[in-house]
Amino acid sequence: MNLFRKITLAALLLLIPSLALADDTVSEMTYILNTFSFLVSGVLVMWMAAGFAMLEAGLVRSKNVATICLKNIALFGVAGILFYLVGYNLMYDGVDGGFMGSFTMWGADDAAALAGDYSAGYSAGSDWFFQMVFCGAACSVVSGCVAERIKLWSFLLFCVVLCGIIYPIQGSWGWGGGWLSAMGFSDYAGSTLVHSCGGWSALTGAIILGARKGKYGKDGRVNAFPGSNIPLATLGTFILWMGWFGFNGGSALALGAAGSAIEQSNVYINTNIAACGGMIAAMIMVQLIYKKTDVTMALNGALAGLVSITAGPAAPSPGAALLVGAVGGVLVVLAIPFFDKLKIDDVVGALSVHLVCGIWGTLAVPFTNPDTSFATQLIGVVSIGAFVVIASSIVWLALKFTIGVRCSEEDEFRGLDVAEIGMEAYPDFQNRSI
Amino acid sequence: MNLFRKITLAALLLLIPSLALADDTVSEMTYILNTFSFLVSGVLVMWMAAGFAMLEAGLVRSKNVATICLKNIALFGVAGILFYLVGYNLMYDGVDGGFMGSFTMWGADDAAALAGDYSAGYSAGSDWFFQMVFCGAACSVVSGCVAERIKLWSFLLFCVVLCGIIYPIQGSWGWGGGWLSAMGFSDYAGSTLVHSCGGWSALTGAIILGARKGKYGKDGRVNAFPGSNIPLATLGTFILWMGWFGFNGGSALALGAAGSAIEQSNVYINTNIAACGGMIAAMIMVQLIYKKTDVTMALNGALAGLVSITAGPAAPSPGAALLVGAVGGVLVVLAIPFFDKLKIDDVVGALSVHLVCGIWGTLAVPFTNPDTSFATQLIGVVSIGAFVVIASSIVWLALKFTIGVRCSEEDEFRGLDVAEIGMEAYPDFQNRSI
Amino acid sequence: MNLFRKITLAALLLLIPSLALADDTVSEMTYILNTFSFLVSGVLVMWMAAGFAMLEAGLVRSKNVATICLKNIALFGVAGILFYLVGYNLMYDGVDGGFMGSFTMWGADDAAALAGDYSAGYSAGSDWFFQMVFCGAACSVVSGCVAERIKLWSFLLFCVVLCGIIYPIQGSWGWGGGWLSAMGFSDYAGSTLVHSCGGWSALTGAIILGARKGKYGKDGRVNAFPGSNIPLATLGTFILWMGWFGFNGGSALALGAAGSAIEQSNVYINTNIAACGGMIAAMIMVQLIYKKTDVTMALNGALAGLVSITAGPAAPSPGAALLVGAVGGVLVVLAIPFFDKLKIDDVVGALSVHLVCGIWGTLAVPFTNPDTSFATQLIGVVSIGAFVVIASSIVWLALKFTIGVRCSEEDEFRGLDVAEIGMEAYPDFQNRSI
Repeated sequence: MNLFRKITLAALLLLIPSLALADDTVSEMTYILNTFSFLVSGVLVMWMAAGFAMLEAGLVRSKNVATICLKNIALFGVAGILFYLVGYNLMYDGVDGGFMGSFTMWGADDAAALAGDYSAGYSAGSDWFFQMVFCGAACSVVSGCVAERIKLWSFLLFCVVLCGIIYPIQGSWGWGGGWLSAMGFSDYAGSTLVHSCGGWSALTGAIILGARKGKYGKDGRVNAFPGSNIPLATLGTFILWMGWFGFNGGSALALGAAGSAIEQSNVYINTNIAACGGMIAAMIMVQLIYKKTDVTMALNGALAGLVSITAGPAAPSPGAALLVGAVGGVLVVLAIPFFDKLKIDDVVGALSVHLVCGIWGTLAVPFTNPDTSFATQLIGVVSIGAFVVIASSIVWLALKFTIGVRCSEEDEFRGLDVAEIGMEAYPDFQNRSI
Repeated sequence: MNLFRKITLAALLLLIPSLALADDTVSEMTYILNTFSFLVSGVLVMWMAAGFAMLEAGLVRSKNVATICLKNIALFGVAGILFYLVGYNLMYDGVDGGFMGSFTMWGADDAAALAGDYSAGYSAGSDWFFQMVFCGAACSVVSGCVAERIKLWSFLLFCVVLCGIIYPIQGSWGWGGGWLSAMGFSDYAGSTLVHSCGGWSALTGAIILGARKGKYGKDGRVNAFPGSNIPLATLGTFILWMGWFGFNGGSALALGAAGSAIEQSNVYINTNIAACGGMIAAMIMVQLIYKKTDVTMALNGALAGLVSITAGPAAPSPGAALLVGAVGGVLVVLAIPFFDKLKIDDVVGALSVHLVCGIWGTLAVPFTNPDTSFATQLIGVVSIGAFVVIASSIVWLALKFTIGVRCSEEDEFRGLDVAEIGMEAYPDFQNRSI
Repeated sequence: MNLFRKITLAALLLLIPSLALADDTVSEMTYILNTFSFLVSGVLVMWMAAGFAMLEAGLVRSKNVATICLKNIALFGVAGILFYLVGYNLMYDGVDGGFMGSFTMWGADDAAALAGDYSAGYSAGSDWFFQMVFCGAACSVVSGCVAERIKLWSFLLFCVVLCGIIYPIQGSWGWGGGWLSAMGFSDYAGSTLVHSCGGWSALTGAIILGARKGKYGKDGRVNAFPGSNIPLATLGTFILWMGWFGFNGGSALALGAAGSAIEQSNVYINTNIAACGGMIAAMIMVQLIYKKTDVTMALNGALAGLVSITAGPAAPSPGAALLVGAVGGVLVVLAIPFFDKLKIDDVVGALSVHLVCGIWGTLAVPFTNPDTSFATQLIGVVSIGAFVVIASSIVWLALKFTIGVRCSEEDEFRGLDVAEIGMEAYPDFQNRSI
């Protein structure tokens, strides 16, 4: 070989790694950005647990506030442990078109990425973290609905089963690669898999528990039990709104390519404008019907818009997202008196927001996403509804006939704070009703 | 061609894409990071809406708390919709050295980036989202100043015009590439374009509305109406402080180059230390004057520091930023009694914080940024002040002579919560004054 | 040279920059991601200042709420200024195996990175910002313990010395490259360097101040002074939990390589599950001992888990982290009555959470991290404990014998809000005890 050839060869050999390096660079950066998106979005969704806590603490009567705070933070502890022990793998491990994953404990395996193979796309732990906080959100939906009369430990035991069994099994059908996803069922961030799942669990709980004493008069009158702290409820709604950017945005499941970043941007916009639409629609409707508007209805309207867009926040134009949210806002204004007519006592309006709008949002996906069909969406809504209703009823009834789910009438009258946890939420403030 | 030549050629052909790939990599990663910076910063700014809500809910009397909560969340809904329908394009579309953009609806166009051309720098949606939350912040400034006496729907109609017309037009002069920016006017994150704009609107509103009943006695005495919930006001200030990192940091408008990341870092530090300076200066000054310090003055001092540094948070050294903030803290302590002397009733001190310090911060830019001139900064302050005062006065007066802006005296006495939205903020707590 | 040779040469020359470019790309992107991780994590840690404020505002009696709010936001202002003026350089500048850095003012130097040399790894400002918010956290630990009886300005002067001298000196031993780190002492995110440091300062303060009037009866009875606002305390705990992802996650000090992203993911999971473990363990234990559970103990249990895992959140499996946190939760339930037995009056349980669990967490590191030894960890705990106890005692005593540290008995009875800052936290609410 002459000198030129030698030099050329040497240069080529030197340059070849640059090809590999460039390729690896892309992958490693993509891997990092995908991972970081899960972490940042996951923190925002974790923060929603605080949002639910504040919303519910603001909407219950002051004698039950400390208890609802405890339930909301404790359920997040339950979710964190159960989703590790069994939930994640039951939802994601080897579902393969079927009905559930494996009953095994989760463990991270990032060996390939540490060895330079980034094809997993993101770290195992960041994915677990992001999925775990969603599981917590499903529990949070329940706590508000069954507040002011459920026993603390019975509620937490229900959360154990919800996080460990019910949520992961139905979740596996959609996000774990199970039979519903194989059919083409589409639920971007969980209008059905998270919100309706929580909503159905809450519905069975509310029915089995029965209404709070005095809520429904003998003459058919519905007595209002006004929330004790409106700024806290407002703060909770703002927190949920904020967290929803992580909830829906992070559900792009990627950030490390321009297309993913664009998708997340569109999801942010649609999430926001659906909330705006739901809130303003609810406010106007309440003003027209009752000649006064109402702050809790505005808050529920915003949440209704958020739940409604959650099944499909990437595909719509902002205008369509505004409309999807606005319909959610109208639905919530209609649904709250509807459940009261049925004497299903939903303390914070969780059924109207999470169940009704969760269904609406899931069924609305085909309007803007041509890859989905109304029939498949309906199959998803119905099958998950049926499963969660049956499974959660079994758990509620099992609790009812063992340790009991409902507090004594006396405890309910005194308030759960004194009765269940021996501590008042606002011990220094003179209470009007006492 | 002999074998060597063939191999060399093949190798070269294989390697050429690595050059292109590497180039594209840079651009795509830069594009993603710029986009993500807008999204993350935008969430922080969105969160400031909650900060304003809590600050104002803490500083009004308990009989008006639910209403101020509703106003604060509803205005964010108005901003989200209006900035989509008309605001964004009026502010940014084809301003070209002129006085406004186009009256058209915003639409995302990321086709180029999806085809691999990342020269736009960031996704259209992420930019829209970031700019929209700024528009919301301008509204939030108004709500605190005119609280406790303005009608809910009149306030929201004012926000419609502010978000859809007034804010975008004056914003186009600076950030939309309009005549002021062509002159060299510099307002990094909006001391003038956001805070003073909100402040001028609030000033005209406060004058046209008049003071709350009983605020100014006949003998010239100023009656204190103490805020009803100091921890909420503190929380609101912390939220605003936190959100301001997104407000100022995100206004670097980029993250995908080392220089941008360094710029954002410096902006974070200066934003923080200006808040520290404003707060500590206000505390010391109040202690010296009144022999006691005051928590709401400390909170307003921190916000004063934040507003003051907002016009130029990138250029100063931390020491200079500390000084800019400290002057803001001193100004706010002087401005609050000044407005009271003029009998301009500003419920939360919004004029002192956002208008006075917004002006101060804008005029202070040339001290640390040699590319700006005091004269141009002054032209910006005056021209935007004149425009916003005139435009907002027209809107307030139009509202006054149609649906009315001020509640009846009786409603004001009972509190807007009962009168306007039929719901108390704290129904369980015995009120001292009743 | 023939044409083929010329083309080959030209192509090779064209391609060579791609190698360099690819290399630079990696570094610049890594630099940006490391910087951004500091900024985002730093915002989360800054937010913890609000968490401490809300936790403490919820746990003190209503007559001291405005004061504790002021202390908590003012201390963050002190930290921001002092860590700039002297703290950072004293902690990090030229420690070199020794006992402290230099008494000089911090200044950013990013010239190298701006010139294309990214070997610093991250911008100077992002590092300063991240370290400053940690300094603030150490102060926040103190304020809760010594609440309801300390004078405002004395407390803030103590914070000046803590942020400017005590915290940086002991911090330099571990994180500044001082003698402890040279020995192999390992404290990932500051169980000892932040939490115990704050805890020891709080302990000496609580002893020198003495207990609140009426806390310990003559007959040995411990009187409960229930917290005035449980939802605020819950919110504070949620905020701290959220912020802890930045506290521990950001302490990976990097994000720009896949290994760092994986490390941060594992830290997030372990941080979360330790909090879950601490909370659930505390709840169960309280239920078993007292036959009722307790919301403030659940909150402190979660915080105990968080402090416990902070010394070593990267190495453990999630199961081990759960256990480390659960032990923390058990310790806090035992420690709170223990300090009461010693008549050390710790208003919010800060000693039990931050000092006791800070020690436990530091000593637990060798169980999961084979690179550490129990002996070295113990040396770190003891030496830092001794230094902080001595140094903080000198400061507390100097304050006591000059301007005084404790309010008058009358002021304590009336409440610090009226006495020290002339403003009530909840002026509209009728107080039961008055």
